[in-house]
Amino acid sequence: MSEMRQDPTTKEWVIIAAERSRRPDEFRQQSKRERKSYSVTCPFCLGNEHFTPLETFAIRDSGSPNTPGWRIRVVPNKFAALSPQVIPRRSDDGLLFRGMEGFGYHEVIIETPHHDRDLPLMSEDEILNILETYRHRYKLLREDERVKLIVIFRNYGERAGTSLLHPHSQLVAVPVIPFHTRQKYEEATRHYDDTGRCLYCDLRNAEREYGKRVVLETGHWLVFHPFASQAPFETWIVPKRHASCFASMTNAELPELASVLRRILHGLHTLLNDPDFNMIIHTAPVEDENTPYFVWHIEIYPRLTTPAGFELGSGIFINVAAPEETAHLLREIVAAS
Amino acid sequence: MSEMRQDPTTKEWVIIAAERSRRPDEFRQQSKRERKSYSVTCPFCLGNEHFTPLETFAIRDSGSPNTPGWRIRVVPNKFAALSPQVIPRRSDDGLLFRGMEGFGYHEVIIETPHHDRDLPLMSEDEILNILETYRHRYKLLREDERVKLIVIFRNYGERAGTSLLHPHSQLVAVPVIPFHTRQKYEEATRHYDDTGRCLYCDLRNAEREYGKRVVLETGHWLVFHPFASQAPFETWIVPKRHASCFASMTNAELPELASVLRRILHGLHTLLNDPDFNMIIHTAPVEDENTPYFVWHIEIYPRLTTPAGFELGSGIFINVAAPEETAHLLREIVAAS
Repeated sequence: MSEMRQDPTTKEWVIIAAERSRRPDEFRQQSKRERKSYSVTCPFCLGNEHFTPLETFAIRDSGSPNTPGWRIRVVPNKFAALSPQVIPRRSDDGLLFRGMEGFGYHEVIIETPHHDRDLPLMSEDEILNILETYRHRYKLLREDERVKLIVIFRNYGERAGTSLLHPHSQLVAVPVIPFHTRQKYEEATRHYDDTGRCLYCDLRNAEREYGKRVVLETGHWLVFHPFASQAPFETWIVPKRHASCFASMTNAELPELASVLRRILHGLHTLLNDPDFNMIIHTAPVEDENTPYFVWHIEIYPRLTTPAGFELGSGIFINVAAPEETAHLLREIVAAS
Repeated sequence: MSEMRQDPTTKEWVIIAAERSRRPDEFRQQSKRERKSYSVTCPFCLGNEHFTPLETFAIRDSGSPNTPGWRIRVVPNKFAALSPQVIPRRSDDGLLFRGMEGFGYHEVIIETPHHDRDLPLMSEDEILNILETYRHRYKLLREDERVKLIVIFRNYGERAGTSLLHPHSQLVAVPVIPFHTRQKYEEATRHYDDTGRCLYCDLRNAEREYGKRVVLETGHWLVFHPFASQAPFETWIVPKRHASCFASMTNAELPELASVLRRILHGLHTLLNDPDFNMIIHTAPVEDENTPYFVWHIEIYPRLTTPAGFELGSGIFINVAAPEETAHLLREIVAAS
């Protein structure tokens, strides 16, 4: 029998319809991705630096900006959705049609010079460098007072919204706090007002105590498949210390996160045979970096199913796998690695 | 330059990044769908009635239930996400993990016996029969007092979440009012309290007056690509009369809707070369069928782009086509048809 569950952070319902599910091995991707170490037309490959806008940051062993010698390279997105060159001026017809010029930053973090060295296959050190780059760019861009929220994310594969194979993530800084974020904040604020506690700390502690949805626990981090997962193998990585801002991560926490992230992504890669996925860093709006009612975290969504008309019409997601079962599978793989 | 726009019904922002766009003809689907008029393994084809659960409704020219002779057939979804056989009993651990047994109805409306006669290719009469079937099922299922909201939708193609080609739509009746719906209602209530008017009537009137995003207007219906469209060619069909419940449609309005729907779907089919799409009927919750602040309507989403990490992380959609441009293209095609 299926079950409806309410997400305590959004109040949105999901339907856990695990009997509709394929067996776990049927979630495995069937076709192998074509991989080659270099592509002459890839704008992110070594030697093709002139294909991209000028870099804004790099970690390099040698060379000058925009030439080979880099390990990680950050460039403005050539097809940026937003531009820092404009003022976020609002237009308003008085009632219904509110607009704003498309101010913002849209950057690409090229994670490696190697075309086929994808994140789940990288070493801890390589992942650590990427996380440090995220933190560096975050800290710099939040200084622009027009920026209200910074979203760092990673799309991998066609089903996750990208056809660019070369390992990369993206950063978008927007001049508004989206309703999507506001809504979660309102729920968390109400919980805080009612109980005096942080909803996300309570949730992490409850998942830890329940245990069956926990994938991995280390000194600083808890990884679990949440009670009201929207999709099979939805994975949250949450710090065990209350902290609302991603960039507040300490130099002790960061290397451990690199290790956790490597193990989780490698586990998903092994279990699901290199699935398409999205990874998102959820961090507080810039003006709310020290809030007592939110904990920043990472969410990973393997794209194994497609949200359709029902999800669009109701906001209710049908999840064909129980998070208790997927957590068990991933926990076993991660423990064995 | 891109532009941010706020959806007046949800307060969510979208980014209209039309310069990122492909040219209109690049939205056209490249590969042709394989079509055949009958499939021996298709559970919805004529003569295969025994592959489905027993029908709950049919429009038939001859024959007895669950045998050939039907034109439209309604059956419970064999892989139903929800079941009417259970009581929507709530479980609650006191705070964070709220659940409910998976009560609900999940039906499939098999729109035609012909495997390859898809909705955009049907006659007005065939579409009228489908709309009448929707209305009939809606009216019946809303009598179950456990039902709070009925969502009727249609998925077409892999990118829209289905691999079943045989023309069909679905109905899901849920025992909750989802937050997704509540939130829109709160915005509409605020607008009503502030102005004394219905937000959706104001929006329809404003789109009609502005005109550039209007695709088609008839005596009873207005079709437009909304100001804050989330995706290219997002199309709304809205009644010109205030009515919050889909099933309140009169016998005068219904045939005209069949005509409008045929012209719009045929136009999208021609312009985009048989695109995958979702179609959703947004109607008020059962207990709110006569509300003064909501207008039921149909939304159509051709699935031409894939929401990715940024959308998941921010709720802000990047739309690579301006609704003014797509409305112009569709308007021309529809006018010529």
